[in-house]
Amino acid sequence: MSGNSFGNLFKLSTFGESHGEALGGIIDGCPAGIELDISKIQLDLDRRKPGQSAIVTQRKEPDEVRFLSGVFEGKTTGTPIGFVIENTNQKSHDYSHIKDSYRPSHADYVYDKKYGFRDYRGGGRSSARETASRVVAGAIAKQMLKGIKINAFVSSVGSIQLEKDYTELDLANAETNIVRCPDTALASKMEDYIRQIRKEGDTVGGVVTCVVQNVPIGLGEPVFDKLHAELGKAMLSINAVKGFEYGSGFGGSSMKGSQHNDLYNEDGTTKTNYSGGIQGGISNGMDIYFRVAFKPVATIMQTQKTINKEGEEVEMQGKGRHDPCVVPRAVPIVEAMAALVLADYTLINNSILR
Amino acid sequence: MSGNSFGNLFKLSTFGESHGEALGGIIDGCPAGIELDISKIQLDLDRRKPGQSAIVTQRKEPDEVRFLSGVFEGKTTGTPIGFVIENTNQKSHDYSHIKDSYRPSHADYVYDKKYGFRDYRGGGRSSARETASRVVAGAIAKQMLKGIKINAFVSSVGSIQLEKDYTELDLANAETNIVRCPDTALASKMEDYIRQIRKEGDTVGGVVTCVVQNVPIGLGEPVFDKLHAELGKAMLSINAVKGFEYGSGFGGSSMKGSQHNDLYNEDGTTKTNYSGGIQGGISNGMDIYFRVAFKPVATIMQTQKTINKEGEEVEMQGKGRHDPCVVPRAVPIVEAMAALVLADYTLINNSILR
Amino acid sequence: MSGNSFGNLFKLSTFGESHGEALGGIIDGCPAGIELDISKIQLDLDRRKPGQSAIVTQRKEPDEVRFLSGVFEGKTTGTPIGFVIENTNQKSHDYSHIKDSYRPSHADYVYDKKYGFRDYRGGGRSSARETASRVVAGAIAKQMLKGIKINAFVSSVGSIQLEKDYTELDLANAETNIVRCPDTALASKMEDYIRQIRKEGDTVGGVVTCVVQNVPIGLGEPVFDKLHAELGKAMLSINAVKGFEYGSGFGGSSMKGSQHNDLYNEDGTTKTNYSGGIQGGISNGMDIYFRVAFKPVATIMQTQKTINKEGEEVEMQGKGRHDPCVVPRAVPIVEAMAALVLADYTLINNSILR
Amino acid sequence: MSGNSFGNLFKLSTFGESHGEALGGIIDGCPAGIELDISKIQLDLDRRKPGQSAIVTQRKEPDEVRFLSGVFEGKTTGTPIGFVIENTNQKSHDYSHIKDSYRPSHADYVYDKKYGFRDYRGGGRSSARETASRVVAGAIAKQMLKGIKINAFVSSVGSIQLEKDYTELDLANAETNIVRCPDTALASKMEDYIRQIRKEGDTVGGVVTCVVQNVPIGLGEPVFDKLHAELGKAMLSINAVKGFEYGSGFGGSSMKGSQHNDLYNEDGTTKTNYSGGIQGGISNGMDIYFRVAFKPVATIMQTQKTINKEGEEVEMQGKGRHDPCVVPRAVPIVEAMAALVLADYTLINNSILR
Repeated sequence: MSGNSFGNLFKLSTFGESHGEALGGIIDGCPAGIELDISKIQLDLDRRKPGQSAIVTQRKEPDEVRFLSGVFEGKTTGTPIGFVIENTNQKSHDYSHIKDSYRPSHADYVYDKKYGFRDYRGGGRSSARETASRVVAGAIAKQMLKGIKINAFVSSVGSIQLEKDYTELDLANAETNIVRCPDTALASKMEDYIRQIRKEGDTVGGVVTCVVQNVPIGLGEPVFDKLHAELGKAMLSINAVKGFEYGSGFGGSSMKGSQHNDLYNEDGTTKTNYSGGIQGGISNGMDIYFRVAFKPVATIMQTQKTINKEGEEVEMQGKGRHDPCVVPRAVPIVEAMAALVLADYTLINNSILR
Repeated sequence: MSGNSFGNLFKLSTFGESHGEALGGIIDGCPAGIELDISKIQLDLDRRKPGQSAIVTQRKEPDEVRFLSGVFEGKTTGTPIGFVIENTNQKSHDYSHIKDSYRPSHADYVYDKKYGFRDYRGGGRSSARETASRVVAGAIAKQMLKGIKINAFVSSVGSIQLEKDYTELDLANAETNIVRCPDTALASKMEDYIRQIRKEGDTVGGVVTCVVQNVPIGLGEPVFDKLHAELGKAMLSINAVKGFEYGSGFGGSSMKGSQHNDLYNEDGTTKTNYSGGIQGGISNGMDIYFRVAFKPVATIMQTQKTINKEGEEVEMQGKGRHDPCVVPRAVPIVEAMAALVLADYTLINNSILR
Repeated sequence: MSGNSFGNLFKLSTFGESHGEALGGIIDGCPAGIELDISKIQLDLDRRKPGQSAIVTQRKEPDEVRFLSGVFEGKTTGTPIGFVIENTNQKSHDYSHIKDSYRPSHADYVYDKKYGFRDYRGGGRSSARETASRVVAGAIAKQMLKGIKINAFVSSVGSIQLEKDYTELDLANAETNIVRCPDTALASKMEDYIRQIRKEGDTVGGVVTCVVQNVPIGLGEPVFDKLHAELGKAMLSINAVKGFEYGSGFGGSSMKGSQHNDLYNEDGTTKTNYSGGIQGGISNGMDIYFRVAFKPVATIMQTQKTINKEGEEVEMQGKGRHDPCVVPRAVPIVEAMAALVLADYTLINNSILR
Repeated sequence: MSGNSFGNLFKLSTFGESHGEALGGIIDGCPAGIELDISKIQLDLDRRKPGQSAIVTQRKEPDEVRFLSGVFEGKTTGTPIGFVIENTNQKSHDYSHIKDSYRPSHADYVYDKKYGFRDYRGGGRSSARETASRVVAGAIAKQMLKGIKINAFVSSVGSIQLEKDYTELDLANAETNIVRCPDTALASKMEDYIRQIRKEGDTVGGVVTCVVQNVPIGLGEPVFDKLHAELGKAMLSINAVKGFEYGSGFGGSSMKGSQHNDLYNEDGTTKTNYSGGIQGGISNGMDIYFRVAFKPVATIMQTQKTINKEGEEVEMQGKGRHDPCVVPRAVPIVEAMAALVLADYTLINNSILR
């Protein structure tokens, strides 16, 4: 119930604080016999890791994963896959400024209230560093989901928004620039804006869009565990996420039924896809697409007023190396969570007697 | 895994098809000793039931709940609360038009593909009629959550949007009009628009906003089971929902950190509330508020083209009595799901040794 | 967590007190397309029901099950199967003798301590009447488990023990006598003994053995969810059960490895079956067999001393119609629980990608 | 569903093969603020580890645990406790004799059938080496369960049985001899017998008894999750266990109700304790005691016939360093599993609103 696991049949449990000894996790339920390409796992870790470009945090973490079990002679065995990522960058920092004071819009205050005390080093368990474990598990899930294509990309940074529909774009272009926006001209503007925001000692939010293609019909469970409900939970569990919409989303709420209904072609595909590939909570074989809103990073390099444990007002100056905008590094995390959801529902769907 | 249960420690499991014999459910984990006011449960059912006003479906269902267990001498006993709502309106309809054809943007097609066949009467299990059971359980959860106030209301119908902030409104006004919008002048416009849409044989979407007040600090679990992630899943599991955002939501993604950060007062409250009452997935004692987007109802009274089981194009004419806009009836469902989430996290939080 | 559900993918949740309005449950996860023979379900209920013979309680309960959902045109739909068994025998009894006093070796005392109060009518939720719902679900699980044969029978009553191995007996004979022992001569002795015990106003314990045949290889999960561990939990959850052993059981603990090891035939079957059809927690295709020990029923028709809520010593005289020996009626319950375990593991096993 | 986790609110998930890189696990749900005495954890590991005495396997494994998260400044933080035990003894063995052949009464055959292949090194995941992780978690659970005393001991080896009741013995004596039997005279006989069995190249089974004292009233959930049902599952999940009984156990099945009922003293304690401290699945404050039957270790140092993957008969000679009798090392494992069950039910019980 403590919420450190995700999934049912393909289940990830994670552990680890940002500045503790190591992060890691257990992937339980991964079927036997999947040949694992470890380099693809590392590739996704590299897409998430700090220091990868000029517009992300300049912390240095190699983020190398070590597998301890569940893989034998290059293949999964069906037993739990234990893995560890050592924290190499956790040398003696000075945390005195956050030990007794609460950073605004961080989890410091609520952790102290909930648990009585907290591991104050770099945010402890509430740090987004935890998502490295998700990326490992998601990369394995991707390898299980042969044929399914999962592509996330940045669709807005601050007020700079991608207006084009994803179907007009080559999604592979997202990986050709450091913002991870498939419209390279727009990516360039976004990059400039992020550089400027950093200079101001400020941060900015953004949106990540994800497209999942070649999904078989029938994934998702009716009622409470609708496919999009679980995708929504998965995305909202990522640090800094404030909203989720799929298919027509919030925009669909101002449409009429006569516009919004997706009419069928004779092969069961639909002429439009306002449904976003999901009807009644179950995949219908069309593209699944959704948007995930990220708030601006709470740690800014400007002086802010806040309170300490005694409830006294204090001044706080952001320290350390932080992201001015989180969305470029969030792209592989969104993909990983999507992969975890799809892997889980694939196994649930497989359990049906036929 | 079949997704007919919600919650962990306060758990609702539901059963029932829209035109089967009865709906119902089991509430497991409700603590002992709670005095149940049955009239309040019925009141919420009445807020959801068909036929309650001129702008909702004119089907007649009394939606009376019968409790079979778990309540003794007016109080909960700590054992499971079984309940049943009979379907009194399930007389021999003519379903021939949907038995072999797939209604656009309904779940008919994916049910047939997933299960091999389906209960085609009125949508079967995919009908929003299932939410009556949620309202029963939510009404009990509300009675457990003494002190916490949960108020949902309609904040948009089509393009008619409530611009005022909820803090400027008397939320109790929402129950004084049939649209359930607390701005009564706007409610009147919304009502007119829904009547017009109905005349066109069309439907329209809308947005429900929910405000939860007096929440204790500490509800929610870090990492995967963040409070807003579970609220998001809960809302996305409601029929016709396409999006969820809390606090600053999608709008927050275009803000800067220096604007968005909620600075603390000396008592631990915050001067602003872009966080929406939740930081790091844990309630911070401020108001929790979120928005839920509903698509237009898929059943329209206009002729549409679709396909039958054989993949042949056929014409379909909407029949029966359907909602032109679902949001007025969705208000108590949103509240019920919020109550279920909060009840569950309250019990999880209680389990901590102190 | 309140423990009113059993199973993961084939999950039964039950509700109902012995003298409340009704019992019932939800079976969630039963695959679609199974043709249900309702008469077979009723047959198992009749094997469990009170009043079925001269050596069981003479209470009258028809125990007729009404299905409310999940079955359409004679087949399961894949949606939850809701069902209800009305309590027709719950007329105004006099419970004054147990309302404020604690029956020895019953759950009255611990319920009062755990929940603050209890439904004192006939034991409430702690009554074995709850097992009627298990029998319904088990009977459906049996119909899903085509090919697998589950036969339970009485193997001891008090000190009268069946010495023959089950392989020497025609297990079908168990249903030809009211004790449900496949050795009909021994059954007659057991019956006489139970009649004598009843005359004494006393009760006696016994053992039920269960044999499961034609189980496919591979059911069960290594480590915590070993097949026999889940079978053990299932059996120990039945009222009055004190012990569980499978294969060689407690007797195996005094054997040597050189005797106990089951050597393989060339087809993978084993020459002996001390393993009881399970190796490392996983079925190996041989017969699964296990023994379940039941204590004597706690309600006796003799005067006993006990205490009341105030901790004062009081005398208590057993009232009502109770079983002198529970094992004849426990046979279908043991079968039902075995069927639920096997159905669940069958679906879990099906979820493996191949 | 893959069964590598145990518990709900206090949950252990484990990973690791016997001859892989490392074992370990995650303890999720351990409350914050518990001061951890690491030496007590190591002490329990030492009681389980190979090579500790002349009558156990002479393999050398230091079994040192390294904590990676969830502990800060000597106290638990409420976040998941990740830990690793390196396998230092996994040097290049010769596994050719078990790679393609199936050891009798081991899990080799069923693993191959279930998963398609297996990690054949030393039994892989089916090895009892996995229980080291359970001992770590159990030792932490013990430290959470202040006041509750858990004492397991050996009560039989082969046919040598402890006849005395546990109440007549000083249970602390169990740790004064290498067999772990509190009757030191009998322990000496047991030790001699195990030495003799080892000389024969054979193995022998035994029984472990466990006594849990000072348990608060109210732990355990009615119906499916009865306290003894979960204890039974916990014990049956330990490698080589064939049976479980609590309180009067199998012996109780031949008793009469008039003998077996536990009459109350005025303070709510009972004059006898055939119930074994549990009534209706809920602890009643009396001592909980139960017995766990272990089969003889399947690996013997004698030549046995078996089959290979091709179904051909082959001869197999036991190799390596194995236990002649598993019960002395099983004592801390039984305690650990009991502690895990009690920790979980303590948190579940805490979650009740009062």
